[in-house]
Amino acid sequence: MMTGQEYRQSILELKPKAFMFGREITDLSANGFTGANLNGVAETYDMAQDKDLAPLFVTKSTLSGREISRYTHINTSAEDLMARIKVARRVCQRTGVCLGRCGADSLNALWATTYELDQKHGTRYHERFKAFLRRVQDEDLVTTLALTDPKGDRSLRPSQQPDKDMYVRIVERRPDGIVVRGAKAMIAGATAAHEILVHPGTGLGPEEADYAVAFAVPNGTPGLYHVVDRQSADERKNTDSWDKGNVRYGSLEALIVFEDVFVPNERVFMAGETEFAGEVVNRFALLHRVVLAGCLAGCADVLAGATAIVAEANGLGKQMRDKLAEMTYYGEALYAGALGACSQPAATASGAVFPDPLLANVSKWHVTWMPHEIQKAAEEVVGGSLACMPSQADLESEAVGPVVRKYLQGAAGVPVETRMRAIRLVENMVAGPGRLGSLCMHGAGSPAAAKIMVRALSGLENKKALAKHLAGLS
Amino acid sequence: MMTGQEYRQSILELKPKAFMFGREITDLSANGFTGANLNGVAETYDMAQDKDLAPLFVTKSTLSGREISRYTHINTSAEDLMARIKVARRVCQRTGVCLGRCGADSLNALWATTYELDQKHGTRYHERFKAFLRRVQDEDLVTTLALTDPKGDRSLRPSQQPDKDMYVRIVERRPDGIVVRGAKAMIAGATAAHEILVHPGTGLGPEEADYAVAFAVPNGTPGLYHVVDRQSADERKNTDSWDKGNVRYGSLEALIVFEDVFVPNERVFMAGETEFAGEVVNRFALLHRVVLAGCLAGCADVLAGATAIVAEANGLGKQMRDKLAEMTYYGEALYAGALGACSQPAATASGAVFPDPLLANVSKWHVTWMPHEIQKAAEEVVGGSLACMPSQADLESEAVGPVVRKYLQGAAGVPVETRMRAIRLVENMVAGPGRLGSLCMHGAGSPAAAKIMVRALSGLENKKALAKHLAGLS
Amino acid sequence: MMTGQEYRQSILELKPKAFMFGREITDLSANGFTGANLNGVAETYDMAQDKDLAPLFVTKSTLSGREISRYTHINTSAEDLMARIKVARRVCQRTGVCLGRCGADSLNALWATTYELDQKHGTRYHERFKAFLRRVQDEDLVTTLALTDPKGDRSLRPSQQPDKDMYVRIVERRPDGIVVRGAKAMIAGATAAHEILVHPGTGLGPEEADYAVAFAVPNGTPGLYHVVDRQSADERKNTDSWDKGNVRYGSLEALIVFEDVFVPNERVFMAGETEFAGEVVNRFALLHRVVLAGCLAGCADVLAGATAIVAEANGLGKQMRDKLAEMTYYGEALYAGALGACSQPAATASGAVFPDPLLANVSKWHVTWMPHEIQKAAEEVVGGSLACMPSQADLESEAVGPVVRKYLQGAAGVPVETRMRAIRLVENMVAGPGRLGSLCMHGAGSPAAAKIMVRALSGLENKKALAKHLAGLS
Amino acid sequence: MMTGQEYRQSILELKPKAFMFGREITDLSANGFTGANLNGVAETYDMAQDKDLAPLFVTKSTLSGREISRYTHINTSAEDLMARIKVARRVCQRTGVCLGRCGADSLNALWATTYELDQKHGTRYHERFKAFLRRVQDEDLVTTLALTDPKGDRSLRPSQQPDKDMYVRIVERRPDGIVVRGAKAMIAGATAAHEILVHPGTGLGPEEADYAVAFAVPNGTPGLYHVVDRQSADERKNTDSWDKGNVRYGSLEALIVFEDVFVPNERVFMAGETEFAGEVVNRFALLHRVVLAGCLAGCADVLAGATAIVAEANGLGKQMRDKLAEMTYYGEALYAGALGACSQPAATASGAVFPDPLLANVSKWHVTWMPHEIQKAAEEVVGGSLACMPSQADLESEAVGPVVRKYLQGAAGVPVETRMRAIRLVENMVAGPGRLGSLCMHGAGSPAAAKIMVRALSGLENKKALAKHLAGLS
Repeated sequence: MMTGQEYRQSILELKPKAFMFGREITDLSANGFTGANLNGVAETYDMAQDKDLAPLFVTKSTLSGREISRYTHINTSAEDLMARIKVARRVCQRTGVCLGRCGADSLNALWATTYELDQKHGTRYHERFKAFLRRVQDEDLVTTLALTDPKGDRSLRPSQQPDKDMYVRIVERRPDGIVVRGAKAMIAGATAAHEILVHPGTGLGPEEADYAVAFAVPNGTPGLYHVVDRQSADERKNTDSWDKGNVRYGSLEALIVFEDVFVPNERVFMAGETEFAGEVVNRFALLHRVVLAGCLAGCADVLAGATAIVAEANGLGKQMRDKLAEMTYYGEALYAGALGACSQPAATASGAVFPDPLLANVSKWHVTWMPHEIQKAAEEVVGGSLACMPSQADLESEAVGPVVRKYLQGAAGVPVETRMRAIRLVENMVAGPGRLGSLCMHGAGSPAAAKIMVRALSGLENKKALAKHLAGLS
Repeated sequence: MMTGQEYRQSILELKPKAFMFGREITDLSANGFTGANLNGVAETYDMAQDKDLAPLFVTKSTLSGREISRYTHINTSAEDLMARIKVARRVCQRTGVCLGRCGADSLNALWATTYELDQKHGTRYHERFKAFLRRVQDEDLVTTLALTDPKGDRSLRPSQQPDKDMYVRIVERRPDGIVVRGAKAMIAGATAAHEILVHPGTGLGPEEADYAVAFAVPNGTPGLYHVVDRQSADERKNTDSWDKGNVRYGSLEALIVFEDVFVPNERVFMAGETEFAGEVVNRFALLHRVVLAGCLAGCADVLAGATAIVAEANGLGKQMRDKLAEMTYYGEALYAGALGACSQPAATASGAVFPDPLLANVSKWHVTWMPHEIQKAAEEVVGGSLACMPSQADLESEAVGPVVRKYLQGAAGVPVETRMRAIRLVENMVAGPGRLGSLCMHGAGSPAAAKIMVRALSGLENKKALAKHLAGLS
Repeated sequence: MMTGQEYRQSILELKPKAFMFGREITDLSANGFTGANLNGVAETYDMAQDKDLAPLFVTKSTLSGREISRYTHINTSAEDLMARIKVARRVCQRTGVCLGRCGADSLNALWATTYELDQKHGTRYHERFKAFLRRVQDEDLVTTLALTDPKGDRSLRPSQQPDKDMYVRIVERRPDGIVVRGAKAMIAGATAAHEILVHPGTGLGPEEADYAVAFAVPNGTPGLYHVVDRQSADERKNTDSWDKGNVRYGSLEALIVFEDVFVPNERVFMAGETEFAGEVVNRFALLHRVVLAGCLAGCADVLAGATAIVAEANGLGKQMRDKLAEMTYYGEALYAGALGACSQPAATASGAVFPDPLLANVSKWHVTWMPHEIQKAAEEVVGGSLACMPSQADLESEAVGPVVRKYLQGAAGVPVETRMRAIRLVENMVAGPGRLGSLCMHGAGSPAAAKIMVRALSGLENKKALAKHLAGLS
Repeated sequence: MMTGQEYRQSILELKPKAFMFGREITDLSANGFTGANLNGVAETYDMAQDKDLAPLFVTKSTLSGREISRYTHINTSAEDLMARIKVARRVCQRTGVCLGRCGADSLNALWATTYELDQKHGTRYHERFKAFLRRVQDEDLVTTLALTDPKGDRSLRPSQQPDKDMYVRIVERRPDGIVVRGAKAMIAGATAAHEILVHPGTGLGPEEADYAVAFAVPNGTPGLYHVVDRQSADERKNTDSWDKGNVRYGSLEALIVFEDVFVPNERVFMAGETEFAGEVVNRFALLHRVVLAGCLAGCADVLAGATAIVAEANGLGKQMRDKLAEMTYYGEALYAGALGACSQPAATASGAVFPDPLLANVSKWHVTWMPHEIQKAAEEVVGGSLACMPSQADLESEAVGPVVRKYLQGAAGVPVETRMRAIRLVENMVAGPGRLGSLCMHGAGSPAAAKIMVRALSGLENKKALAKHLAGLS
């Protein structure tokens, strides 16, 4: 297994092609956006090397029996699922951001779905995928998932769009592979991954076979490049000021463009079987929902800590205990809900297990509102200085430094700089690029929510029977 | 193990002494209040006899290796804890009310605490308790917990009260046992239990040794009697009308009075060791919080079902799906959170395990507000008829029956009576004796909540360290 | 203007015909349900006689210049509208229940709409209505509004229902009047009114002219009778125990049946003009929404007071201040929102003014959730005794009275009976017939809410223009 | 009255001294931060020149009878107060930000308090203030209020602070005036005001007379300078990209430093009368709370409009109507509550009126949570692109422009740039410098909230009396 430094080197060797502000990023490591994200992913490698964390971060491969990263593991028990949540929380406690190693959950979805695909169609996708997975495990690679299509007019289906490329699709089928065109939006950790995993969208009709495509391509593949997205308050990332709040790590999302990219057969895991498109996405979602809750719990820990520092610096440590307890409640509620879903695993024919579908949707709902409550509590504690405070440059200037230092002092024993840095970290996590809320918006749109509701109602007939029993109707 | 019928017989033989409306209840089975509660507890026995449910309701004793009821089991694994939640939910799905078999959780608290008590003090409480527990298991008895003291002026401690009996206390110590005096309030299922388990209050000082008392007494013991509490809309319980909503089952709470009751030594499990009083209560609470969430999830299932029937009867089945999904969300959130806490068991020296303390408090908080949201959603769906609908007597009368039948008809295919009964069941669970909210008020007072907050903040130093790391301060 | 006693006499002389539990109520005054409601309405008469309240409760008629009750006034200014809210709050502070004098708001809706009807159709409805109103003002009568039709299958329109009588309709047109058939559900104060005002439903098509009918009929009219609805915990109303919580007053709702009732022409205010049906309902709703908020604010005051008494009796007066402040916040928020809507009156051609439509909908939304928050806070303060407390009969019995008196004592200085009565009042207002939530359910159904949303969005184009301006697009 | 252009010129002539990032700002107009704020305030002048808006923005002086800006008016009626709210909303609809002309509300507080001060102490503060106010009205000046002291350790009182300058104080009293030292934090619109009004803090003891100081000083006064605060995402303000969201206007807050500033007697409005310090702050707060609600309602209008544009661009205009209606509800609830408080004015001896204190606190509470709900709804509609979208530079670049244009297209008829600009505006108002939440954090700290609660409970005795009446206890 790689160290953080080896990982970093391995990514740079792939030469991922990325643009930002209309210009190519020539040095991923030096750039404030891609670099902070690399730092974060490298941290996950170093955590796996830490002997205290290794029992959680490292496990045994079901393929090879070798020690592998949990991020490349196929889950076969409740314990595996719960460990995945714990890893997510620990990593976010350490980095405070969404890093984008959720390719881990895509691997599980592809494992289970290619198995069933082959069972039904006599194809050999699962064997191909197994070989791919074996390499990912052995070489300890980062995968990220490219899921969200640009979608154009969302009231139209893929094949109804005026521009047919609004969803990634196969534009050519060759004997040795396929050629794909399109783009995927909002891909977390896009430039920091060795491999990009691509899933199709859901709800495809039989006439949309070209959209039912799943595959893997390495970063650096010809025709594939990234347009890095902006985030709120992102400019500070290119400074070395602690005004950016989180001084070490950063999330990164990008639009990934596929300009007629060739994908060889051994990397193609679905190519036309529309009836399985929904299943692979749904399985990823079951895992992703609970993992996201784990990530948010970890970020909430950091935010609560920074908030507590500010409260103490303000001389209000005791008065703010209720608010800090409230932040803790929501963080632990996210965590408990996710563990609960994982504690009741649902088996698949492939051997992989997934969280209970109904309980995993609890995490989905939690995630749409609890982060806002956590942020709100942090804002109430920190108050106006969250939105109005001089800069590090002011503090360190000759012109106004002494005055800023004088008037920003708080309770005895807390240095001004500690207070200001903690406020900046809260700002980053409430209104900046590390916003908790940002984490939960991937796919938070209302149509998705509507579908979840319908799923949640499975069991309605049973509930009505219970009511009839008690009302004396049966 | 007993059948429901055998259970019923066994309770009546104990001749529990109970009063209501100032008069003694002469036939517990016939009385609408005590009878409905007996019906519910009897149902738990019959469920254990059901071959589909037995794997969940029946387990193997750690004492005897024999098959016993889960309600008498000492939990030694996450699976045990999760099974306890599942039993709670299934029973509430079947009965729609709080029945009061939570003596089950007191047994676990006493098991673990008497063990540690003996370790420290060289006493023999654990051995006594083990013998008692063995009998409870072998004879398949119902235990209920008497926890809440009347407390008088809650701003005063037990020993400061003008009337010293505001907390149950030892008034005499004899060679063969103790004599206790006082009362316990709001005891669920008080008249339907074979054995009443008594816990002390918390926060006792060394001078309050007489209040640090735990013991068990059978129903029917001389000097012990019940004053059955009123509930909202309780009069209907003494009718055989389906206007009562839940036509079969009912909760029951009582003030239990101890008029100088003698408790022989073999039934005394703590008698003066004030430093353990808090622990036994706390351990019970850890279990009780998650079990309560399970109960509420089960009741929420019934309420959602009744609400769905009304929506369909109104011809609004589809329009109300979002509200029904919301009810489902909260019910499953209660369940997932409880399972999550149970999935991370905390071991004790005695071998018994308890839910993770921090995660169990998540259930405590959930329980203070989620039932209200469930009720609110039900009210929005059912609308005005929840508060304004003619009676069963109207429907069946000569005078106005035909008119009521005509004007209360709804969508085709749903009989008027079905609609009315479903509305009555919703009324019962929203504003009547089966109110979800009632379930969660035992101990919902603010001082308790404050203490929980403090506990929840354990770990604050760690959170601050995480924040400093990210702000570049460490 | 009448005294409460004169009012009471005048109603009894009308001999309203009413049934409950399938039997006719022979003495409205003695019956616990109809009697408590009469008490409440009588109180509103006595309040108008009170010289401190008279400036608010009494005003000058725009028809006659004479002093009349505000309940019979046509509002012509913001001050009038705000006074209506203040009356509503004061009355609910005094009685703690919904009494059903909201015919006041129907009078205003009919005034404005009959005026416009005549303008368009050359009919003489407005003149008829003016004569009717003059009598109501001069004789100081109570009117109540019968609005809600039974509706049968709500997914079908009136003319699509299998049974055509699911909405009140004209079954015969005679030279001297009309004959109507049908029923109206959930009519507040139905047996305590001199006059029943009937509005049509909304959304009628041209083919549904027989359903576009508005008129007034006195209680006691042949063919008109009431079936009094049940409420949660209603049996206590027929006792003289203070267990009923509110010992003096009570709300009352009924199904009013119109069995081919003849209405003479001078009492018919709409008879076929379908395009005005929506308007009369909408105007009533504008007033009713804000008045309801005023009523709830008044009830919230009582509930907060009772809750404060319990907190003090428990010795927890100080610890509960935050919760009491929260209850106050929601009560005042209801009131402030209603006053805000009234402060911006919308004029009509008839001279009558109505609250600003958009702001009145704020009250509608407030009313769907704030009462629940108020109730929740009360429950948190009062805790378990809300659902579990012995009865007055227990307290006063020989058998267990002394024990109940001993163990229900609280902080020094608060008599046991005061504590118990206050708890019963909270119970009444949280889970009994005086539930705040009940007040807001009249018409809280989802289809209505959907329409309100659409109305609320009027102005969307303007909002988009503002955004374009700031984004530099215009 | 001045035009926007004249205003701009008049401010630059004062040469306000300001620093940012440790360097002096040499051209206030050109600087992206101070310039955007100047633009916003200039807009308020231009609005007063607009003949449609003039009836609202211009009124008649109670001092001179001349036409003056509402921003300089002393309110003497409910209509005045409500007009103040309407101005606030209209300005925020036009600019989308907090501009900081709330000196208007300070003028009213000083008017009423200096009057009472003189009545009690025989001082001549009111006369001085009247002369000052006359000039402000005649010359149509902008005032801003400097209220919040840095406070150091908030658990200590001003005189207990290790550094005595943590609250602004008089350090020297001369025959012709006073010398003040200290700083004020988070002052909105600090560099765009002609006059800075300074209020003391509250809760001063008799020994803290030097802290009981109120006065006015013009921008540009020797010894007074600004340190401009950072805001989330503030760097974009110094670009001319529409990525900044709000392309024209911006808020600005600063730390104002008073380095031994001399204030001549005619500008001193309090100097030692500690018992009036609380009153002047409290009166400002009564106005400020309701005005803030008006500002937020105006910003909410803009945010709703931008959100609607995005929904339509996504092809989801209809599906998102509920969320847009919800945003509208909260915006109008803020507005209705503020109008309600203003509709019930409380008179003072000076003739100035203020909103009803209890109802004004409703706005205070509204403001702590409703903006969050509005933001949350906007985020749910806009979804992931709020946090992940390429930049304007990307869109316009040769390198990736065509691809960004292709993949960010939405529903037919909405240009890509419109969609992106609208998303950027939402981002600005949800997570950037225009965050609605920021507006409400001035003084949102918990100790203040606690005091408000206590005030809100005034009337508790009355509420208890009402409850006793209904429970039959009186």
